[in-house]
Amino acid sequence: MNTEISLSPHEIPRQWLNIAPDLPGPKNPPLTANGIPLNPENLQLIFPQSLIEQEISTKRWIDIPQDILEVLSLWRPTPLKRAVNLEKILDTPARIYFKDESVSPPGSHKPNTAVAQAYYNHKEQVKCLTTETGAGQWGSALAFACAKFKLKCQVYMVNISYHQKPLRKTLMKIWGAHCLASPSDTTEFGRTIRNQHPESPGSLGIAISEALEKAMEDKSGETKYSLGSVLNMVMMHQSVIGLEAKKQLAKLGEAKVDTVIGCVGGGSNFAGLSFPYLLDKIHGEQIEIIPVEPTSCPTLTRGPYCYDFGDSAGMTPLLAMHSLGHQFIPAPIHAGGLRYHGMAPLVSQAVQAGLLSPQAFPQLQCYQAAVQFAFAEGIVVAPETSHALAAVIEQAEKAKKLGKPRVILFNLSGHGMLDLNAYEDYLNGKLTDHRLSPEKLNKSLEALSNFPKPECLINTG
Amino acid sequence: MNTEISLSPHEIPRQWLNIAPDLPGPKNPPLTANGIPLNPENLQLIFPQSLIEQEISTKRWIDIPQDILEVLSLWRPTPLKRAVNLEKILDTPARIYFKDESVSPPGSHKPNTAVAQAYYNHKEQVKCLTTETGAGQWGSALAFACAKFKLKCQVYMVNISYHQKPLRKTLMKIWGAHCLASPSDTTEFGRTIRNQHPESPGSLGIAISEALEKAMEDKSGETKYSLGSVLNMVMMHQSVIGLEAKKQLAKLGEAKVDTVIGCVGGGSNFAGLSFPYLLDKIHGEQIEIIPVEPTSCPTLTRGPYCYDFGDSAGMTPLLAMHSLGHQFIPAPIHAGGLRYHGMAPLVSQAVQAGLLSPQAFPQLQCYQAAVQFAFAEGIVVAPETSHALAAVIEQAEKAKKLGKPRVILFNLSGHGMLDLNAYEDYLNGKLTDHRLSPEKLNKSLEALSNFPKPECLINTG
Repeated sequence: MNTEISLSPHEIPRQWLNIAPDLPGPKNPPLTANGIPLNPENLQLIFPQSLIEQEISTKRWIDIPQDILEVLSLWRPTPLKRAVNLEKILDTPARIYFKDESVSPPGSHKPNTAVAQAYYNHKEQVKCLTTETGAGQWGSALAFACAKFKLKCQVYMVNISYHQKPLRKTLMKIWGAHCLASPSDTTEFGRTIRNQHPESPGSLGIAISEALEKAMEDKSGETKYSLGSVLNMVMMHQSVIGLEAKKQLAKLGEAKVDTVIGCVGGGSNFAGLSFPYLLDKIHGEQIEIIPVEPTSCPTLTRGPYCYDFGDSAGMTPLLAMHSLGHQFIPAPIHAGGLRYHGMAPLVSQAVQAGLLSPQAFPQLQCYQAAVQFAFAEGIVVAPETSHALAAVIEQAEKAKKLGKPRVILFNLSGHGMLDLNAYEDYLNGKLTDHRLSPEKLNKSLEALSNFPKPECLINTG
Repeated sequence: MNTEISLSPHEIPRQWLNIAPDLPGPKNPPLTANGIPLNPENLQLIFPQSLIEQEISTKRWIDIPQDILEVLSLWRPTPLKRAVNLEKILDTPARIYFKDESVSPPGSHKPNTAVAQAYYNHKEQVKCLTTETGAGQWGSALAFACAKFKLKCQVYMVNISYHQKPLRKTLMKIWGAHCLASPSDTTEFGRTIRNQHPESPGSLGIAISEALEKAMEDKSGETKYSLGSVLNMVMMHQSVIGLEAKKQLAKLGEAKVDTVIGCVGGGSNFAGLSFPYLLDKIHGEQIEIIPVEPTSCPTLTRGPYCYDFGDSAGMTPLLAMHSLGHQFIPAPIHAGGLRYHGMAPLVSQAVQAGLLSPQAFPQLQCYQAAVQFAFAEGIVVAPETSHALAAVIEQAEKAKKLGKPRVILFNLSGHGMLDLNAYEDYLNGKLTDHRLSPEKLNKSLEALSNFPKPECLINTG
């Protein structure tokens, strides 16, 4: 029965972990489109000063302000649970734990950084935040955070998800945000795309461009931009997940975790859980850390480590990261949060340093894992999270084969209550696996041929 | 920051509270359609023996089997939270607490009894359970419980909700259940209704009749029926809510609760939270206990205490309860779980004994309260739960007027993630208030004119 460890509100971590100073390997700084290192001051048009400082900070620990802790305490600390029933079904000697980030108001890990970003913007007199969203997890999280700090919020939602997941729009509306399908006709970039591809399913890259354009358009400085993943500061804000998990596992008497697993789109839920463990690994502990992505958008497993834009229009700085090319448009899978061409530079750097073991899974195997988990533990997870589950089950089966009682920890990054139409499609046999063809990938990567190359420890081709 | 008290899994109550033996007033037993007291053996066609024993038990405390505790521990104990932000917005001296039953896998309090019912049926070799569901909360809860005990599950879902809330069907499907719109063509009663009213929005009463007919049709005894509310045993299974809340408030140092609030459809989430407090009230404590219903289905505030059928077809025994008449079809409000003509006999008896203070609220006020709560505490509640919130806010404002620091406790019976289309309609100004006309009520009550009359302590007209 000892399957869940809750912490008290006073046990929410008081500091974020910034992995940047500890990460080995060449630090490839962001570059301007001309290939020269970015002056952080250039970011002031879109971010408040305090967040820019966090983005480039070399401090390992950064204090969490009390006002942020108070909002986080609406749902944090989140439960850590042991998946006893799944273990039984799999007949595995592995002990499987998960951190349940689905208990937040919008239903995912996203508000961990949304609340921090809304707070710092509010403190610096910003009145409105623009952002993009894939499946709507991030958009609804920022809408919630903006409601808490009385900011306006404008969300560009990837067109395909806007129509596949109409309910997340309503959620944003309840919290007072305004949500538009992207590409939209409210930006120059959106209009250009719509002229070229009237039926464009959209992509995170396009939506980012639109949100950036909208923020930069307001010369008063009262409109800024907010990003739900990729950035260093976002990885840091999410570190509360792993820091809590460590406390909880210690209370359960689990001295050592063998395998840490999370799904990756931009990298934030994965980093949130795994970076506190990555710190231990950097300092000598043996831990396997697995970021899991869809085979239809295999950024870490098939995309090169390169300099590329974070958005489709090329409005962001060039970031050193794994990328499928900034104009890559992934297959319209329901796991909208994983449909991103790039990857957080910190996650990419850790892959380069040989510290992570990325895997890609086809979606049918992921849904199968999710339905198995729903039978076992009750929780219906988000399509994104199902990718982590597929890897967990594979690891648990491996532990069985080897007869090793390994401890597996994964991040249950969100629930699937607003993604049930994806399950309906799966159960009705309407989904198929998507595998990215080498031709499509090569074509997409052509756009990067003249970009600067980052320094590498190893060659990823 | 001390806004949440979690209990450990070993603090889940080990016994259910059965309020029946302590409730004052005449015990009006169920009657057959001929007006003679029902022989409990007659229930064996639809219920397993152990549940029949619980239904008529005169023991105050009944042990919860270990197998049930193990499934409950997937989400119980549920959090008790203080709504600090709502208090601030209302500027009230009241301290507002809520028990968060939305954290269960199907998202409501319903699995508390679903798991118990599935367990006892499984133990007595039943292979399939039939049931009805309104908004789908109960159907998905029973689907989940049946998955845990490997039972088949067939759900008749009220037609209007079947179409308004398609995602709950998917949820049932994920857990392996079969869900049909009611009235359906799979039962004689359903076919009769469809012939008379091809466009019938359905009602809980009709769906109950269909599920009962289906269970009784199977002469092997391997198919039984399961009911998510109304019955004595259901009120008892839900008592874990209030028993946990008492422990949690004691840990917080709250010695005394002044007001307990829950929404009522059949009565089970309300009874679950309030009956442990009702026991104290019966034994002398001063507590105000408020069941809240919609003005469109005002069973407690306008329906007489009478003998009536629990279903529309008259297949159940006659129950002594508040009722709007078993053929009453409420306005198609989104709060499907509150669209029931009758009320749990135990709740009705407590109203008769003057122990409860029922209130009815129109739906627009309820949604307004729900949006206010979503801004304050983040959680988007089910439309049913919004009725409790409307009453909570009214009580908190009263406390402000009187300058009294009252302690208010309510049941957050479910989340609204699968009811966001209701919020969309509300936010778009598409919802109106429904008030039951005296003419419609009187016409509906005519059907009861020749039924036996229950013994009363007070006269409810």
